[in-house]
Amino acid sequence: MKIEGRWRRTIEERDGSIVVLDQTQLPYQIAWHRISTLDDACVAIRDMIVRGAPLIGATAAWGVALAIGQDIDIDRACAKLATTRPTAINLAWALGEMRRGLDAYEGPDRRAAARSLASKICDDDVATCRAIGAHGAALLRDLHTRTGKPVRVLTHCNAGWLATVDWGTALAPIYRAFEDGIPLHVWVDETRPRNQGLLTAFELEQHGVPYTVIADNAGGHYLQRGEVDLCIVGTDRTTRTGDVCNKIGTYLKALAAHDNGVPFYVAAPSSSIDWKLDRGADIPIEERSADEVRRIRGVEIMLPDTPVANPAFDVTPARLVTALITERGICAPGELPTLFPERG
Amino acid sequence: MKIEGRWRRTIEERDGSIVVLDQTQLPYQIAWHRISTLDDACVAIRDMIVRGAPLIGATAAWGVALAIGQDIDIDRACAKLATTRPTAINLAWALGEMRRGLDAYEGPDRRAAARSLASKICDDDVATCRAIGAHGAALLRDLHTRTGKPVRVLTHCNAGWLATVDWGTALAPIYRAFEDGIPLHVWVDETRPRNQGLLTAFELEQHGVPYTVIADNAGGHYLQRGEVDLCIVGTDRTTRTGDVCNKIGTYLKALAAHDNGVPFYVAAPSSSIDWKLDRGADIPIEERSADEVRRIRGVEIMLPDTPVANPAFDVTPARLVTALITERGICAPGELPTLFPERG
Repeated sequence: MKIEGRWRRTIEERDGSIVVLDQTQLPYQIAWHRISTLDDACVAIRDMIVRGAPLIGATAAWGVALAIGQDIDIDRACAKLATTRPTAINLAWALGEMRRGLDAYEGPDRRAAARSLASKICDDDVATCRAIGAHGAALLRDLHTRTGKPVRVLTHCNAGWLATVDWGTALAPIYRAFEDGIPLHVWVDETRPRNQGLLTAFELEQHGVPYTVIADNAGGHYLQRGEVDLCIVGTDRTTRTGDVCNKIGTYLKALAAHDNGVPFYVAAPSSSIDWKLDRGADIPIEERSADEVRRIRGVEIMLPDTPVANPAFDVTPARLVTALITERGICAPGELPTLFPERG
Repeated sequence: MKIEGRWRRTIEERDGSIVVLDQTQLPYQIAWHRISTLDDACVAIRDMIVRGAPLIGATAAWGVALAIGQDIDIDRACAKLATTRPTAINLAWALGEMRRGLDAYEGPDRRAAARSLASKICDDDVATCRAIGAHGAALLRDLHTRTGKPVRVLTHCNAGWLATVDWGTALAPIYRAFEDGIPLHVWVDETRPRNQGLLTAFELEQHGVPYTVIADNAGGHYLQRGEVDLCIVGTDRTTRTGDVCNKIGTYLKALAAHDNGVPFYVAAPSSSIDWKLDRGADIPIEERSADEVRRIRGVEIMLPDTPVANPAFDVTPARLVTALITERGICAPGELPTLFPERG
């Protein structure tokens, strides 16, 4: 999507290494961060210089390619990358793709193949997001046709182009609908503790999509008062049965949408589906540092010894999900195996 | 309750004026703020130097008493105080009590009667909270007897002694149970945008009650994982039918409690009940400054022109409320008129 008026991806090849947009600095500074080694890739993922399940996968793929360029054993590289973040399935998926794709290669060929495969994983992510955008935009278009009014969407966290290589997952339908001239307004959850909603605000601002930031507490109120037409969120891991693991707080918004008869959609690229899991309760939930809650933008907002817990994700059961928006189309959460018969 | 080891009220008479604990400075500084005039009282309420529905009522009562000491017409004084905050019914209730109680008095007698009545409103609030504590503690005691384990309570915002004159409403059962030796742990919602959860943390810390602060997004996850035995929150206004208006975000936690079969209690002193209202949807919801969302502790956390909405309260429908804890005992939300037949 556009940043400072120019079309960019969040991860780009440049002079043999890769550069990523440093998301810890947004929206205050637009800074590009260079990743030249496996270690750089691990740090970028762990410290959330890049974040968002699809972009984590893309960065991990490049991490493997860089490791191979450094003559590091692929098993060691994958093991190291796999432990940087525990929840997003895309990370494991991307490592699996790299491993399988490089099996047949050796020596200098393997280096070139690794770079080319990492690059393909990025391109595929863009194509996937574009397809999700097209399918999801049809929902927004239908709503607008029915009501004749601007479509009011609630989203949580950031599942925009900053969470992917381009377009985004949850925001792709919004961008596509916006490009198609459908009037829109987006309620943007702040998404404490890390306030990724501000990344969403930054993206929407850059594109001219109207939006309003709200505290995470406020979404239920707007749903109750009839000021939200639909919710769209992303996912870090969705089970084959349609239980959706996403940023902490997603479950609360799904409950409120359900209580008020408002559709709740999850933009789920197939790379985020865990075909091995049947129960959302079995997804490991990352517990992150207490300081993420105690500080905002480096500023202490509570006493440093305040006891704090900081689970990063929660699980929204399939029964609260109206439908999943995948690159192959839209389906009820229980019908994923029908849409992806080769995995089902 | 105790602060710095000494038993204090949040509002106290001193040398002809009153002093209140300045809640905008907590937990970083324990500062007492003097209120000597009607205007001082209005500023203290509007700028949230005092907050919490019962304490707003007590401060308004003192505002009227100070106005009468300044020879300001009681109608003018009440009109001015009534507009400081729109949602808490206790404010209107306290002004009504002062007006009715002072009707029979004139001249210097009226001044003395006003001070004495404001003082009585404060004492009555303490007695009410103490009674709520006793009734609510019985619930915690029963739970502990049944499980033999520490009772895990989730609370939202601050409905502790800082929101009242002493004891608190939602926290009174916790303090009483703690004093009675029942092992407890409190999950404290941060409560963006104003982070009143940190006031709750401050109170509990001062009393030695174990607690953990969590982002507002996290409560649903802990409810889902069976780590919460019950929720207790306060209320700014409850309809006669049991719809509960409370700090923004309360509704989301009530939904999550309901979804997981966890009891959701509301500590509701009768002064917070609006006997004239049948529908929670008719309660006016205060829209506060966008800067409360844009800044934390004076620090900008998003760009200053970010579009923001900031509703301060939401309404939890009676169907999601297990029971109300009043000073007269515990009742189902629909049974308030039975418990208070003189108002029913």
